[in-house]
Amino acid sequence: MSISSFPTIGILGGGQLGKMMAAEAVRMSINVRLLSPKDAGPMQAYSGVMAGDWTDPDVLRDFGADCDIITVESEWAPAAEAADALGDAVDVWPSTHTLELIKDKGVQKQHLADADCPVPDFECCETVDEAVAVANDFGYPVVLKQYRGAYDGYGNATVHSDEELREAWPDLATDDGLMVEMFAEFTRELAVQVARRPGGEQVVYPVAYTEQENHRCHAVEVPADVDDDVAEKAHAIAQRSVDAAEGVGLIAVELFEMPDGRVLVNELAPRPHNTGHYTIEGCDTSQFENHVRAVLDWPLGSTDLRRPAAVMVNVLGEREGTPAQPDTLPDALAVDGATPHIYGKPDVRPGRKMGHVTALGDDRADARNRAEEAADALHL
Amino acid sequence: MSISSFPTIGILGGGQLGKMMAAEAVRMSINVRLLSPKDAGPMQAYSGVMAGDWTDPDVLRDFGADCDIITVESEWAPAAEAADALGDAVDVWPSTHTLELIKDKGVQKQHLADADCPVPDFECCETVDEAVAVANDFGYPVVLKQYRGAYDGYGNATVHSDEELREAWPDLATDDGLMVEMFAEFTRELAVQVARRPGGEQVVYPVAYTEQENHRCHAVEVPADVDDDVAEKAHAIAQRSVDAAEGVGLIAVELFEMPDGRVLVNELAPRPHNTGHYTIEGCDTSQFENHVRAVLDWPLGSTDLRRPAAVMVNVLGEREGTPAQPDTLPDALAVDGATPHIYGKPDVRPGRKMGHVTALGDDRADARNRAEEAADALHL
Repeated sequence: MSISSFPTIGILGGGQLGKMMAAEAVRMSINVRLLSPKDAGPMQAYSGVMAGDWTDPDVLRDFGADCDIITVESEWAPAAEAADALGDAVDVWPSTHTLELIKDKGVQKQHLADADCPVPDFECCETVDEAVAVANDFGYPVVLKQYRGAYDGYGNATVHSDEELREAWPDLATDDGLMVEMFAEFTRELAVQVARRPGGEQVVYPVAYTEQENHRCHAVEVPADVDDDVAEKAHAIAQRSVDAAEGVGLIAVELFEMPDGRVLVNELAPRPHNTGHYTIEGCDTSQFENHVRAVLDWPLGSTDLRRPAAVMVNVLGEREGTPAQPDTLPDALAVDGATPHIYGKPDVRPGRKMGHVTALGDDRADARNRAEEAADALHL
Repeated sequence: MSISSFPTIGILGGGQLGKMMAAEAVRMSINVRLLSPKDAGPMQAYSGVMAGDWTDPDVLRDFGADCDIITVESEWAPAAEAADALGDAVDVWPSTHTLELIKDKGVQKQHLADADCPVPDFECCETVDEAVAVANDFGYPVVLKQYRGAYDGYGNATVHSDEELREAWPDLATDDGLMVEMFAEFTRELAVQVARRPGGEQVVYPVAYTEQENHRCHAVEVPADVDDDVAEKAHAIAQRSVDAAEGVGLIAVELFEMPDGRVLVNELAPRPHNTGHYTIEGCDTSQFENHVRAVLDWPLGSTDLRRPAAVMVNVLGEREGTPAQPDTLPDALAVDGATPHIYGKPDVRPGRKMGHVTALGDDRADARNRAEEAADALHL
């Protein structure tokens, strides 16, 4: 059935990031296979879906037999297992080296610091007493972070005193302790998407301003309203960080803009990222298309903005349940010039990312108003 | 597996138009079913595909059981059979009334003329003698057209004399003869896309200039380089024509701009159309998304251009064979700011539409250069 001479890209993951990668590949007639541990989800619209135990070497070999390249939707997908099962038969991008580096926040930060990428001061602490000493050295507040798996306010805590630190430690700490990080009193959180080919060729996207609510990304405004020298620094640091991690594919770099004009790296995500969803409508080439191009080692596309401003607003779940309710989609469509993406997750949870809306405009305020209005109309 | 409370749209057709409709629906988590008489083609990337005898009432009932709405990829899909098989259970849009009206070029032209939509002079002629008389009345050259199924230079002929007319007649004429049309010595061919909801609400796209080569659309430039009053006339006539045909969904109106400033309707296509592919990247809402919105009777989206100019160039097959060769896609991707669409047809034929490229830009020439360069690089 497939146009077999077109390449086949295998995606480990069946969530919204895999779905949006698949959409770009399918447009170019690139064959898509998706492997997911679940049999329902955003990828269900595509025919090349396989559900199974994606850590099982036999499953991975079966899946990979058909693929010219394997990539991941997330750093938590079993890339190492796929690389082991498939050996030299199929390349896995990003490399397991890059993924291992990024998955451990302590290793990642140290690696970035060693490569002269500015990061907030941090120490990896094995014991609570060590952590208290480091915190007193940095000055409170400090952030305690688990090395692996922390996201969106889970697996970390901001503490303001020895007492708070000692209280938070037992619930958070793992066998190797926690990372203690100086609390960055940032002016803004920024993000920069970089696409990089195996040989090192890069393209970089505009600097995005990311607005958080309750430790979650609420909105992304592009271009960020920052001074030119901050934007230049953000670009340079993002590109250097991605080189340092030897990232291949799309890598998102989350940054802090500091009051003194410094730009610090918060963390890397070795894949298309929520802060880059605006690129689908907003840029000549989306982050998902450039991810596909990069892992195939094909020429990367222009990252120019199509309109002066692009704004994305997330649509979060509001209740516990299944399935999502579509009744409000027409209300969102009534907002002119807003493009809704509904991921198609079969289960709703409060705060879960169920979709997003992007609006383009002549200025940030105009695009923001329309994106917010449409996102507000959606209740999932 | 499906998010069952989101609507399900059933598309009769498995070609590139169905594929591009499906892409927009899937983004919004609208469930998609595709029914095609062939088991391979552009739709194969999607899971909701059914291959079978799509004129068989049982097949259609099986297909439609799951659908909230049925639409067609082309006026030649068995919409009437679907409407008969499904009765009141599922609406079919566009209506069979609209499709029947449009499929017969004689009926279509008469209907448009009756609704005060300007069309080139024409007569439906049953015999060759009648045709010769009409041709002498109009003055040569005239165009002979089959009532049904003619496209891209097939099923019609331009003749310059009684002799040529009499020679062409026997090969072309069907039982009810042929339509004889005054040859429109147009300045330009134009096209306007209109989306219309069942209640009559419309949105209209910019006026597109369509450039033909060997009776096939080669390139589309938007906005067309025409005087404001020509653009106004084109919009008004297109919208009136779509109302006259009671079109629902996306309807493409092909027009002639005449040297004296008149705008005439050439013909309607009751579906997204090659001349509107530029809208995917070029407009806030693509023709495919507005088709999906319209047949679901949902609010229609903004048709504003994202950049000052958009140009689409078709990629035609160059050889007889199977499957298509992908080797040249990276060359096309090396052209900055050009977006290739490869339809994924399993068979190549010389002149067959295998894909297209769209480029946006500050002006038509800039966008045209990049679209042409990328399309030239593709050999399928």
